[in-house]
Amino acid sequence: MDDKLMLMIPGPTPVPEQVLLALAKHPIGHRSGDFSQIMAEVVDGLKWLHQTQNDVLILAASGTGAMEAGIINFLSPGDRVLVGSNGKFGERWAEVCQAYGLTVESVTAEWGKPLDPEQFRTALEADTAQQIKAVIVTHSETSTGVLNDLQTISSFVKGHGALMIADAVTSLGATSVPMDEWNLDVVGSGSQKGFMLPPGLGFVAVSPKAWAAYAHAKLPRYYLDLGKYRKDAAKNTTPFTPPVNMFFALQVALKMMRAEGLENIFARHQRQMNATRAAMKAMGLPLLAADGYGSPAITAVAPINVEAEKIRSIVRKRFDIAMAGGQDHLSGKIFRVGHLGFVSDRDILTAISALEAALQELSYEGFVPGTGVTAAAKALAAG
Amino acid sequence: MDDKLMLMIPGPTPVPEQVLLALAKHPIGHRSGDFSQIMAEVVDGLKWLHQTQNDVLILAASGTGAMEAGIINFLSPGDRVLVGSNGKFGERWAEVCQAYGLTVESVTAEWGKPLDPEQFRTALEADTAQQIKAVIVTHSETSTGVLNDLQTISSFVKGHGALMIADAVTSLGATSVPMDEWNLDVVGSGSQKGFMLPPGLGFVAVSPKAWAAYAHAKLPRYYLDLGKYRKDAAKNTTPFTPPVNMFFALQVALKMMRAEGLENIFARHQRQMNATRAAMKAMGLPLLAADGYGSPAITAVAPINVEAEKIRSIVRKRFDIAMAGGQDHLSGKIFRVGHLGFVSDRDILTAISALEAALQELSYEGFVPGTGVTAAAKALAAG
Repeated sequence: MDDKLMLMIPGPTPVPEQVLLALAKHPIGHRSGDFSQIMAEVVDGLKWLHQTQNDVLILAASGTGAMEAGIINFLSPGDRVLVGSNGKFGERWAEVCQAYGLTVESVTAEWGKPLDPEQFRTALEADTAQQIKAVIVTHSETSTGVLNDLQTISSFVKGHGALMIADAVTSLGATSVPMDEWNLDVVGSGSQKGFMLPPGLGFVAVSPKAWAAYAHAKLPRYYLDLGKYRKDAAKNTTPFTPPVNMFFALQVALKMMRAEGLENIFARHQRQMNATRAAMKAMGLPLLAADGYGSPAITAVAPINVEAEKIRSIVRKRFDIAMAGGQDHLSGKIFRVGHLGFVSDRDILTAISALEAALQELSYEGFVPGTGVTAAAKALAAG
Repeated sequence: MDDKLMLMIPGPTPVPEQVLLALAKHPIGHRSGDFSQIMAEVVDGLKWLHQTQNDVLILAASGTGAMEAGIINFLSPGDRVLVGSNGKFGERWAEVCQAYGLTVESVTAEWGKPLDPEQFRTALEADTAQQIKAVIVTHSETSTGVLNDLQTISSFVKGHGALMIADAVTSLGATSVPMDEWNLDVVGSGSQKGFMLPPGLGFVAVSPKAWAAYAHAKLPRYYLDLGKYRKDAAKNTTPFTPPVNMFFALQVALKMMRAEGLENIFARHQRQMNATRAAMKAMGLPLLAADGYGSPAITAVAPINVEAEKIRSIVRKRFDIAMAGGQDHLSGKIFRVGHLGFVSDRDILTAISALEAALQELSYEGFVPGTGVTAAAKALAAG
């Protein structure tokens, strides 16, 4: 049905009406007191969301642009970096490093499995000459729905002395990413995820230790030069024309998030992940990520004896719900349900009931109609 | 008065209601047939606006990000580039080149004066070894309101063989930039100018000759790697999550532009520039750019015996009209009136009458009240 789309993909995510209406305001000049007031307020909100006293910089870019900025501002050609890779985004950060002539060493795990923190410890302990300058880890791997143990990995990185660069694109706003407590040096994210905003803004938070590395980092950059953003942020402005309407929207979204409260936001995502996972199990659909490693932002399902793409297609065509497919070698083999950002418990019930309808239509063997919604409802009630 | 702001700055520019409402639509997934349809339509519209058969790529970035992409994708470290510099943006492209280790030679003119095409001819003819790989010229210099003679400079570049990289950020949509006819190889622009959109999108058009250079260009890039955008554009998609709401808005804005027609759009900007310049002269306010070199996008005024910032402040505070100040060494010495994008003849009369009121309040010597509006009206009527 036209105009009735429901987004259950891991970005873009649903956007609240008041945020959409803020987007539709007439732009203002970005070299104005009015803009600076908004910028001061949203930067304050971003620090709250990152649980940090560090700088949080705002770019007109996607999450990839933000992460690239978070890498190239702190390193020099030939620098050795350790990259965690257990999905499309981990692989992407290795590609970014290679594009800039960094020396990449990878800690890998199969797609769908979590990174093993011990492998980071081993690699870092072996690097007695401290040649590894940065460790890059994707917290919530969007391509597989795996949540990596960023906290533990970061504790090993702190012992070593390298920079800890975290991709929090789908974890920030879905689960706690306490930048200061976890000693993260760089945290990158994008607006179309937990922020309840459309795509268009990237965020990079930077620790004092990372700024110290910036001072002698030699990779070339201009538009993504975070030093320029820091310098202008001190005056509550930006070096290049910012997407002012997205700032209006960010202002509203952060107000909503603060009203809900961090703990409530994280509990909601956890509850909805639990409900989604319980429902999949009840319906006989195998989860890609094992229990304990699921991302509160997204659940990936790897069906057997029924085609993932057929399920996704029915849900889309009959019920106007967009779920995501698999990426790269998982294309056609999994489907992914986003439960990230502006998602209510009702949305989870809705998505599960649509999946039930699809499984019925496909005569999926062993599936007992009603079990998915029942399990989801139970998990949601358990909180 | 709150919520009554009128933008007469060179970006962000006013945005039509139907474009704002498109921004407020619920996002859709970017890996969907619906998005691909929009992308196909807007790329077609962008080619029409650029008067080209070449690729036009869409980035989540400001105009500076688009221009940086337009430079770094086609060059290698140490390459020699010739940069036209007669204002803040010409200087910025030289800075971008320097940040990437290119060898920069500049053709300069005083801020407010046009670049001399003959100096480009001389420099290019002297380069018999064809070491100059690219020439970078800002068409409409936003900082001064000067329109450089891009067509003539480009004709010399064609004779030499270097790439012609044009900053059309404030000229595209305000005056004709016929990419194919003028043999431009790269054209960069941004959404918050002639496009009648908020900031948030950057555009880069690329000729086959530039793509040939891309094949062996070695400057590092990832987010700004235009090859990735070209590859995905062939499938009507983007390599990184695009600002889908801005695509909705772009679709509407391009429809409006096509309905008005290129010739009418250019004639409107020319007429409004003529009226603005005629009014300034009639009010005794000196223009920064000489006749024949004014930009149809923006008029810079360098008042004598009255402070530019006082004029700007009265117009802002009493009449809610935002005009721009000077940048860098022209700060405090000039003010700039944007007449770019969604600007009607009424807006010109409004801006001039507010300037008249400010000059009256400041008891500006020699100013005869009524002369500005009278001159503007006459020029607007002349077409």
